[in-house]
Formats: sequence, C-alpha cells, structure tokens
Amino acid sequence: MKISILKNVLNESIQHVSKAISSRTTIPILGGIKLDVTHQGVTLTASDTDISIQSFIPVEDDNKTIVQVEQPGSVVLPAKFFVEIIKKLPSQEVQMEVKEQFQTFISSGATEIQMVGLDPEEFPVLPDIEGNQTISIPGALLKNMIRQTVFAISTQETTPILTGVLWNLENDDLKFTATDRHRLATRSAHLEGTEEVKFSNVVIAGKTLNELSKIVPDQNALVDIVVADNQVLFKLDRVLFYSRILDGIYPDTSRIIPTSYKTELVLDTKKLSESIDRAYLLSREEKTNIVRLQTMENGGIEISSSSSELGKVREELDVIDFKGEPLRISFNSKYMLDVLKIVESEQLMIAFTGMMSPIILKPMDDSQSSYIILPYRTTN
Amino acid sequence: MKISILKNVLNESIQHVSKAISSRTTIPILGGIKLDVTHQGVTLTASDTDISIQSFIPVEDDNKTIVQVEQPGSVVLPAKFFVEIIKKLPSQEVQMEVKEQFQTFISSGATEIQMVGLDPEEFPVLPDIEGNQTISIPGALLKNMIRQTVFAISTQETTPILTGVLWNLENDDLKFTATDRHRLATRSAHLEGTEEVKFSNVVIAGKTLNELSKIVPDQNALVDIVVADNQVLFKLDRVLFYSRILDGIYPDTSRIIPTSYKTELVLDTKKLSESIDRAYLLSREEKTNIVRLQTMENGGIEISSSSSELGKVREELDVIDFKGEPLRISFNSKYMLDVLKIVESEQLMIAFTGMMSPIILKPMDDSQSSYIILPYRTTN
Repeated sequence: MKISILKNVLNESIQHVSKAISSRTTIPILGGIKLDVTHQGVTLTASDTDISIQSFIPVEDDNKTIVQVEQPGSVVLPAKFFVEIIKKLPSQEVQMEVKEQFQTFISSGATEIQMVGLDPEEFPVLPDIEGNQTISIPGALLKNMIRQTVFAISTQETTPILTGVLWNLENDDLKFTATDRHRLATRSAHLEGTEEVKFSNVVIAGKTLNELSKIVPDQNALVDIVVADNQVLFKLDRVLFYSRILDGIYPDTSRIIPTSYKTELVLDTKKLSESIDRAYLLSREEKTNIVRLQTMENGGIEISSSSSELGKVREELDVIDFKGEPLRISFNSKYMLDVLKIVESEQLMIAFTGMMSPIILKPMDDSQSSYIILPYRTTN
Repeated sequence: MKISILKNVLNESIQHVSKAISSRTTIPILGGIKLDVTHQGVTLTASDTDISIQSFIPVEDDNKTIVQVEQPGSVVLPAKFFVEIIKKLPSQEVQMEVKEQFQTFISSGATEIQMVGLDPEEFPVLPDIEGNQTISIPGALLKNMIRQTVFAISTQETTPILTGVLWNLENDDLKFTATDRHRLATRSAHLEGTEEVKFSNVVIAGKTLNELSKIVPDQNALVDIVVADNQVLFKLDRVLFYSRILDGIYPDTSRIIPTSYKTELVLDTKKLSESIDRAYLLSREEKTNIVRLQTMENGGIEISSSSSELGKVREELDVIDFKGEPLRISFNSKYMLDVLKIVESEQLMIAFTGMMSPIILKPMDDSQSSYIILPYRTTN
C-alpha cells in the first residue's frame, strides 16, 4: 500500500470511524483503524463489535484529486495515536506507505513517522445485510426522534434491553419508545412509502444512537436504514454505520399509557421549565429530587420543594387552560426537567389520572410525542 | 436586615466571593456567604481560611439605585444553594428579609424562598493588615506574571512550600519564581516608585493565584497589594482578596541557573511547539514523555521520540541562529510544552551547558522571563 492523501479529508474520515473505537478494548486489533486502498479510493473501518463504522474516501471529488494511489493494499493502524498525529501533521499532503510486517511510514512536511501496523486479515469482517428491509428517513428527523426519546433509557446494566430505544414500524408509522421503568418517552413519525416494510422489537442501544446522531448531518438528506435480524445498517453519504440489535424482548408499555384524564393543564413550557428548575435546586440537596405541584383555588398552580437543612422554595404559575379536578402530586423533578429540555413546543399539556398514577406530558403542537413520569408515592 | 437589590449586581458579587468557598469544608459556617447591610451598601464575604474574598455593592452606582436598604443587618447564607438560586430568579428585583433565628425570606416575581440562615457572629473575622507595605501593579501585568510562572509549581503536598509562587521585591524589581524541582520558571517586572518597599520569601499558593487571576480584570487598572507578615491583601475595584502566605523557607534557586552556555539555538516558537507536540503524542504512551533533541551537521536540529509498541516520530527543524557545540539531549516533552504554551515571543533561545545539565529557555524579545528544564539522564 502506497498513497498520497489530503490531510483534511483523511482527518474527517478518521473522526467519523473513530466513534466506533472503544478505549477499553483488550483485543489489540479492535483498537485499530483498518485502511483498505483500491484504485477507487480509501476505505476506513473501525469496530468495537457492537458498532462498526466505515467511511469511504474517493480518489477524486468535484474534479479535485483527494488520493493518489501508487499501490493498493491494506493495514490496521493503532487508532489513538493515528487519530491524533494525523490532525497535527504540518502539511496538507500526507504520504503513507506500508512495508514489510505492516510497518507503516507516514510523512508530511519535515515530519516522518514510523508506525507499528497490524495484519488487516485479523480485523473483523462486517456483516453483509444488504437485501433486507430498507426504509429512508430525513437525517434531521432521525436526530430529533433520537434526542426526544434517548434521555429516558435505563442506565442500569441489570436490564440490558432497557438501555436501548425500541423501534417499531407499522402502517408507515415509525415509533421510538424508551423507558427506565420510572418514565417513558415515545415519538412517532409518518414515513411515506414504507407500506411493504414492517418490523417490531428492534432495540438499539442508546449510546449507539447518540454516536450515530453525531455523524448524521443536520439536513434533510435521506438516511437509508437496512434492518436485518440482529443488525441495523445506517447508510449516510460515504459512511456506513452498523449496529447490533439488542437481544431480548422489550416490555409491552402500551398498557401504562392512560387514555382518559382526571385533570388537564395547559402551561407555558419555558415558564414551567424555569420554575421546576428552581425547585429542583433545593430538592437535589435531599437526593430525592421531589418537587410538588398543586392546583390552587385561583385557577393557577403552585410548584414547591423543601429541604430540611436549606429551606423552602414556593412559587405560583399561571395556567393557560385547566380542565377537571383539583390535584396535588409529587414527582422527580429531574425527570420532568429532562422532558422539558427536549420539548420544542411553546405550550404543553400535563394530564393526571390521580396522585398515585402516571403524569402525562404532551407538547401542544406535536401530536407525535408523549412523555410519562411516575409520581412519588408520598404519604401526605 | 431588609433590602431590595438588583439581581445582576448581586449575582456578580456572589460570583466573585464564591471563589473562596471550599466545597469540602466540614465547618458549616465556612460553607456560607456572609451579607452585611449598612446604609452605604451590602458587603459579601466568603472564606475558606486560606483565602477570603470580600465584595462591596454600593446603594447607588452611576446615579442608579442598586440597593434599597429598609433595615441594616447581617446574615450568613448557605453558599451552594444561594449562588445557584439567585442566578435563576425570574425578575431583576430581589427582596431579602432576615427574620427570627436568621430565617431569610427571598422573593422575586412569583418565586418565594425561605432559607435557613446562620449567625454572622460565628463567621471568621478578616485580618486587619492595612498600614503595611503596599505596592501597585497593573492588573494585566499581574495576570501575565502569574500565568507565566504558576504552571511550574509542584502539585506534591509533601513539599507544601513548592506548591506556591515565590515573590521577591527589591530595587523596584518584582520577581516571581516557581519550581517543582524538575523545572523552574521566573518572571520579573520593573515597578516604578516602590524604592521604599522590599520583601522576600513571600510565597503564595498557586491555586490562590489562579483564583485571583479569574477576578482581576484584563486591564491596566492598578491592583494595590498589601504585604503583611503572614497575609497578603489584593485590593481591586470593590473587591478585597486576602490570601495566607505559605509557611516555610523557599529554597534558594539562584545557583541552578547557569550563566554561561555551551550551545545556543534560536528557534521559531510556534514551529518548535508543534514539533514537540507531535513527538509528545508518542512519548506519552511510554509514560516518560521523553523526547530527544539533536543538532545536525546541516545546521538544523532533529526532534524525535519512540514507543516500542507504536513506532517512531522524527522531524527536522530549521535553526535561526546556532552558536557553540553540537549536542544531543533528552527531556520531558510535557515540561517543554508547558513553557512553549505561555511564551508570547515569536522566537526563543534554547541554551544548553551539556547533556546532563539544565536546559534554559528564554523568549527573544523578553529579557524578564526565563525557564529551566532538567534533562533526562539517559545512558545512550
């Protein structure tokens, strides 16, 4: 393998694939980035076996030469050092040559680097899952759906299935669900032209979706998603992102979502968020994060919290619309703030079915999201 | 105590004094901010006994009312909660009232807070050190002198005196010295009109100087410094910053600074910095950070490092001026980078007195700073 390549382009590709490298791997080959050079271009691959990312650099882009290939070939280079040194090379022109025993020589300006390379034959082979069910979704929508659900996953490794986000597709409707048993987030989107595709119980690790979000551009360009039995492939422009599907059956959450309410409030999202945030400051000191919400006789609500050591916070909030019975309820303010942070709608509805029953939050101008928080069971 | 005060002004004062609050204190009163209200204004004080900071808010500023005092008085409020809640209050107007048992009521907009206050009589009294030796120094110069020396202090608590920066003043010349026994940084400045003032062995903790730097504005406004036996007071506009002087005798470093050199190189600071940075990436993997510098027959120098697992980096660098004998030397690249980061001069001189002797670095257009790094004693 012998090439000359532009530093910025190589660097960008490295940044993409390096998201699949685990710093904790004990298998040396997985701590590396594989380079495959053909006369068409350079393919970079990294994998931690849960996620694999592949990025392709064509020899030419927009009539500009990116790579000059003198000799095709492959090598695996130690990721940590490779990632950092390429960024810091003094010149835009980078020469790379692999010699005997995968010794790799990199030069740029007056800098010469000799790197211990590994045998590319030892690198894991990526699954071939083309030909399976495929859907297409605008990148910006995919990122939004991830952001609006992933915060509710469980971080407890004791229930691995809940560390993922559930994907279901039926009747053109793609739905994401996440829960940690204390709260639940769901977000749906209508995808045209997927009538023939249907899947359920596709669960993708939250941390994988967060890494994917960093690579997907904030644009409406379509991301193709191939869903196979135990793998999902996200196809972006020149980047392929493979993820394992989590093993196990995701619990049925449909029954915990109430369909009728005893009390319904419409509130200003920003004002509610700021108010809960102040009450949270104090509740945090008690470790419980308990904040109380109570309807008042004047038609408003009261938000309050207290700490035996520090004191009390109490404030009143105007209600835009109020239906149903008076109510007093306690909840984990951190969970409420997590929802309020990702709601984009200016107003939101909070609905209750009693002081021991789930609290429902729905953005007013978005019928496709809903959030549930279980209340604290307090005695007073 | 009963006042009405502008949120932004109160908040700014809180930010200043809160730098003196240790999060690890076991003495509850030291986890608080003291407020003293008179008809002239509000004084905030915080102290961790090493550092004490006092900030004054006048009742009026630029003909604008800042504080309305209804009733003078004092209270100590729990810092962590007070700092955060004031920032997040909904309105610019903040009312504060202290009632029986130092219960403090704060209100702003529709928010009402009740805070458990502490007895101000229990708060430590600040030392009275006015009337001692005083010098004045432009704020920007003081910050620069701190930045250009403090990185070289020791972080080892076993030699407490070396965790500080030594200040000496003699013949109008203020000199800062810092060393951790592996490297040394010195920076001097000529201060007009201090002929009558002279001090030595004034050692101030590095972390105190870092906190001070955050408060001193980046301007040429003078900072008055009062030096007493075991305390230093920095007087800024409306902020008083007290620091303890470290106990002990600072070691004499004058003898380790060589006065004649065997080899002298003048190099481009930025190019040297980038080159050492690349070699550092590899040396870091060996934990030793060892990088080699070697003069070459063509008049340039070679920078190199190697790691048994990863490979080698080698590069050549042009020399602007070269005097003396050829040389090969190994050093801790992290120490060299620390110096190169704070050198503002475009060129710098590196001087050597032999491969086992200190390396001297001096910025070319700044005769008031010099840096010394001890070399690694390698066998080859």
